Amino acid sequence: MAEKGKGRTLINFIGIPAILALIWAGGVYFALFIGIAVLLAMNDFYNLYAGKGYFPSKILGMGGGILVLIFYNFNLEISSPELIGSILVFTFLTMFSELFRKRDHFLENVTMTLFGILYISVSLGSLIPMREADTANGTLLTSAVILAVWFCDSAAMGAGMLWGKTKIVPWASPKKSVQGSLGGLAASFCVYTIFKSGNIGGLALSWTDVAVLSLIAGFLGQIGDFMESWMKRQAGVKDSGSFLMGHGGVLDRFDSMIFAAPLSYVYFLIR
Amino acid sequence: MAEKGKGRTLINFIGIPAILALIWAGGVYFALFIGIAVLLAMNDFYNLYAGKGYFPSKILGMGGGILVLIFYNFNLEISSPELIGSILVFTFLTMFSELFRKRDHFLENVTMTLFGILYISVSLGSLIPMREADTANGTLLTSAVILAVWFCDSAAMGAGMLWGKTKIVPWASPKKSVQGSLGGLAASFCVYTIFKSGNIGGLALSWTDVAVLSLIAGFLGQIGDFMESWMKRQAGVKDSGSFLMGHGGVLDRFDSMIFAAPLSYVYFLIR
Repeated sequence: MAEKGKGRTLINFIGIPAILALIWAGGVYFALFIGIAVLLAMNDFYNLYAGKGYFPSKILGMGGGILVLIFYNFNLEISSPELIGSILVFTFLTMFSELFRKRDHFLENVTMTLFGILYISVSLGSLIPMREADTANGTLLTSAVILAVWFCDSAAMGAGMLWGKTKIVPWASPKKSVQGSLGGLAASFCVYTIFKSGNIGGLALSWTDVAVLSLIAGFLGQIGDFMESWMKRQAGVKDSGSFLMGHGGVLDRFDSMIFAAPLSYVYFLIR
Repeated sequence: MAEKGKGRTLINFIGIPAILALIWAGGVYFALFIGIAVLLAMNDFYNLYAGKGYFPSKILGMGGGILVLIFYNFNLEISSPELIGSILVFTFLTMFSELFRKRDHFLENVTMTLFGILYISVSLGSLIPMREADTANGTLLTSAVILAVWFCDSAAMGAGMLWGKTKIVPWASPKKSVQGSLGGLAASFCVYTIFKSGNIGGLALSWTDVAVLSLIAGFLGQIGDFMESWMKRQAGVKDSGSFLMGHGGVLDRFDSMIFAAPLSYVYFLIR
């Protein structure tokens, strides 16, 4: 992470307050922000393996991504048979269109097109219903998740630079260390503890909630980061895009959130 | 298709009456038959790109496939948020396990593992709820779909050998001809017309139903066949497995059904 340190810190200083403002504004403002982030991250993802000759269908992928966001935003109710039917019809449509694109890598293009929707729009898009879940709690929970992930990110970088010795997943992300990861986890825990403390009211968290949500943001979020690093490494690219200078693209910026957001929301729904 | 003609014809003579008997027996017999077919076809699919170095996780893929079949067989009711949550958790589990497998082709293995579940278990498995849909109609509809697909298959081969000139998708499947495909479509239409005629009672089909179902079995089913041919061609293998001699594997045997079964069922649910 060190290589992107400076740019990232700058963006955090400008970006985090702006995103918190968007969360508090909610409604169409937050939904549009997430929609733009999802589409930019999908674009990064679909370009990721261009060097290997994979060209997923951006039109179908992003079209499907937008459908998912509409579904989330308007809280559409469909039964599970309808959902399964829609997924299958969309899958066959993607395969059909790929058959007539006559490209190499039929399977890779089809699966990457579909996976992009799942990996980015279905997961990151869950921030929209999380924000709207019920007015005060949704706003606070969404803020807490975003702060926990991004403080984890910064603390992991700091702790890693200070004490990082034991490599954690050297094949995937050679700079990540156990010490850095523990620092990140500790930072997530602190964020949720502050939210629990009562100074930030309305979001009633038990210690179990704090523990589980910290693990999701501070442990699974980092796993999401490792995975994206590994995909990039295998694709032979360093940064997944160039939209945010020094930040390695929008996808990089959201790689931890991709895991942390939906899992936090799922936990919140079933706790 | 001509290359697999003889073995295929033999299996059809033994196989079709046996499968019709299983459909009429229903319940656990038919469900187990579909379950075995799904797992064998998934195994073929997961081996398909071994030559390219792709090794999807068979344990997770087939485990997920079995979960889907259980869901279908017991007609489990879950809400769409629960379904989406389960899909995401399973996706992250697959990615997590792949991260620690330390293999090349992280993305290819993850997406192929997940796609195998969708492409085979979710689609072919829909024959189970279709059979059980409501006693007489489900049995008849399932029989009609299977007969329509397999008569289409045989008629397409016959018509293609007799009159086949104009190639339809030469890049994907060089032997398939427009004339053969039209022959297959005509055969599907005949099968559904016989079911409509009233001699086989209980399944009330309008002419619209006959037209739509014939197109699904006789046109989209063939598209499914072309796609599997193209995947095999790109993978550099001829037959996707060797379980049924001369038949090119279980996946080959069901490639048309993969498209025809769920789409026929979806049409039947929404008509």
